[in-house]
Amino acid sequence: MFSVTVRDHMMIAHSLRGETFGPAQRLHGATYVVDATFRRAKLDADGIVVDLGRAAEEVRAVVSELSYRNLDDEPALEGMNTTTEALARLIADRLAERALGGALGDTARQLDGIAVTLHESHIASATYERAL
Amino acid sequence: MFSVTVRDHMMIAHSLRGETFGPAQRLHGATYVVDATFRRAKLDADGIVVDLGRAAEEVRAVVSELSYRNLDDEPALEGMNTTTEALARLIADRLAERALGGALGDTARQLDGIAVTLHESHIASATYERAL
Amino acid sequence: MFSVTVRDHMMIAHSLRGETFGPAQRLHGATYVVDATFRRAKLDADGIVVDLGRAAEEVRAVVSELSYRNLDDEPALEGMNTTTEALARLIADRLAERALGGALGDTARQLDGIAVTLHESHIASATYERAL
Amino acid sequence: MFSVTVRDHMMIAHSLRGETFGPAQRLHGATYVVDATFRRAKLDADGIVVDLGRAAEEVRAVVSELSYRNLDDEPALEGMNTTTEALARLIADRLAERALGGALGDTARQLDGIAVTLHESHIASATYERAL
Amino acid sequence: MFSVTVRDHMMIAHSLRGETFGPAQRLHGATYVVDATFRRAKLDADGIVVDLGRAAEEVRAVVSELSYRNLDDEPALEGMNTTTEALARLIADRLAERALGGALGDTARQLDGIAVTLHESHIASATYERAL
Amino acid sequence: MFSVTVRDHMMIAHSLRGETFGPAQRLHGATYVVDATFRRAKLDADGIVVDLGRAAEEVRAVVSELSYRNLDDEPALEGMNTTTEALARLIADRLAERALGGALGDTARQLDGIAVTLHESHIASATYERAL
Repeated sequence: MFSVTVRDHMMIAHSLRGETFGPAQRLHGATYVVDATFRRAKLDADGIVVDLGRAAEEVRAVVSELSYRNLDDEPALEGMNTTTEALARLIADRLAERALGGALGDTARQLDGIAVTLHESHIASATYERAL
Repeated sequence: MFSVTVRDHMMIAHSLRGETFGPAQRLHGATYVVDATFRRAKLDADGIVVDLGRAAEEVRAVVSELSYRNLDDEPALEGMNTTTEALARLIADRLAERALGGALGDTARQLDGIAVTLHESHIASATYERAL
Repeated sequence: MFSVTVRDHMMIAHSLRGETFGPAQRLHGATYVVDATFRRAKLDADGIVVDLGRAAEEVRAVVSELSYRNLDDEPALEGMNTTTEALARLIADRLAERALGGALGDTARQLDGIAVTLHESHIASATYERAL
Repeated sequence: MFSVTVRDHMMIAHSLRGETFGPAQRLHGATYVVDATFRRAKLDADGIVVDLGRAAEEVRAVVSELSYRNLDDEPALEGMNTTTEALARLIADRLAERALGGALGDTARQLDGIAVTLHESHIASATYERAL
Repeated sequence: MFSVTVRDHMMIAHSLRGETFGPAQRLHGATYVVDATFRRAKLDADGIVVDLGRAAEEVRAVVSELSYRNLDDEPALEGMNTTTEALARLIADRLAERALGGALGDTARQLDGIAVTLHESHIASATYERAL
Repeated sequence: MFSVTVRDHMMIAHSLRGETFGPAQRLHGATYVVDATFRRAKLDADGIVVDLGRAAEEVRAVVSELSYRNLDDEPALEGMNTTTEALARLIADRLAERALGGALGDTARQLDGIAVTLHESHIASATYERAL
């Protein structure tokens, strides 16, 4: 199995709902360093999993829809508890949609899976991985 | 599949038994930077894998039982060759026991797996992963 | 010259004032990974720059005054443009005040300088360094 | 499942064939920071996955066959598009061959798998993993 | 003293002249992860050392003049031994020229210094720092 | 001013004397990731601060005198409280002695300074810097 990973980041404000979250129930924020991983059993004719340049552009596009925003006010996220885990899934799902739609190139429709890790600090991260 | 990872560390002395270990047969020591990963197929009602604060506390508790000690003198480790691999399993097993006992919260009993990576330097690490 | 550095982090929401900041004028947030460095020409009687445990506690205390907050609403920061540079100075100044007040131990009053670096992502950071 | 990872690096020149690669079609170069991971379900009699010292030597040997070279001129790589993905597989396959040949010690023939990650920068990497 | 640092990278081929360089006399290559640091005694009216967005753009521009190239064939570098140290100076000098020319904004002409670190692997780097 | 940095590591056991050190008064251990920095105002005829290969060898030699040992039992360290700060100075001084003795090459006698940072974990380090 092959995979490639590209890194980007986003800076958001949000608050979390539920006593579990203690002080993170207050409006605060995070830099999420985003690692997006694309998996594939066989390489394409160019010898790659996916065009790294296009992958980086699509990750940037998905991340830009969220960055420099207060996620509590985003209509698209209404009702969602924007935990690191939930945001990792959101980004993975949006990348999957773009890949299936051809944004990563024709052969990228044959990707086997996508994983997204969000590093919220030097000591904590969350990952969501899914098939394509 | 979702996962979250929390990082902590421990500083121990020990020696390793067996010619394989060369100079590491002498009493020496290590800082182990510990990455504990908790996996789960579905998020709980709060939208998380596990309460990150409680996870960090439990990792700290398990790591504190070993840190600032000479592992060669620990009764609980008698007869064990305290390789990085073996310590990774020990920590994963102790975290699993705590998770199953409810220390990570009720819903954490539904965790699917735990993985522990010990980084012993900038160029070497060992991982143990297990189901829960 | 000797120095020791301890790392912690904080997660805040804020917005920046001025056209220079583009999309960062909107309410967003950041994780700042904080490196606090304490400098000293000679070691104390224990052979250290400062008690690392106490230093870590004081950094945690200073950082906790800001973390999990919307800095736009903090009375203590009113009128301040909370750029990464300005926050690095704020933390360094608060640590200096604590050091001079004895919170880091008696001999820490002889520290020569303090530097604080805030890493706002994997690609950007700001530092402020000052004498004590 | 257990695993150990050792890190090394290599510095090579090459060019990539195909319009997909844009400016990387020109002769350029890369430092690949190499993470080689060895997996195994059970530890051997010494309590390890593989002798870390021997593993590091074999990784060094495999990497040295490529390092400080222009890969476009290497007879052994003729006809190969030396993408990061393809180089990860090449290194994993060469390590597997050595492991099966006994270079990592007798018990290392029981390794279950090998994975190789090449980090080409702070924002991009590729991985190949295979059974043994 | 304040400073901000932005990170980018470049991927180049080159060879080094002189027996000192051993196998690096052969045509090979490197990824240089570039940290560009801008220093300043006082912040500008916006509360910053330099506009981070513009700084990142200028670093990208300078790095792009070198990246995806064989430095042995660059007319502008003719006669230069392109060691990591020499490249760090080259990039710092080109950034200084741009800063003094106003490319980083009017107030950036008051920068006190620039430092450039090139990380050539996980175990080696070179830095050049200069006044402005 | 130019500098180059090379990284290595050592794994030691020791205990620290003094109530300040709390649990670190017990026999424990550490991995120290060692960054050795060599500074110089002008490059030598080869365009370098120091031969990186020789620098790495000398750092390895100095570090090997300490690694895989219990520092409490080292005759050469008798009476010394082996804090991270003190070990950083010890390594810097030993490197300085080697540089002045010609071990880094003739031109390395013109080095202006040496700095050594020991990272004892992902959250703490100590540095000692000196003139040559």
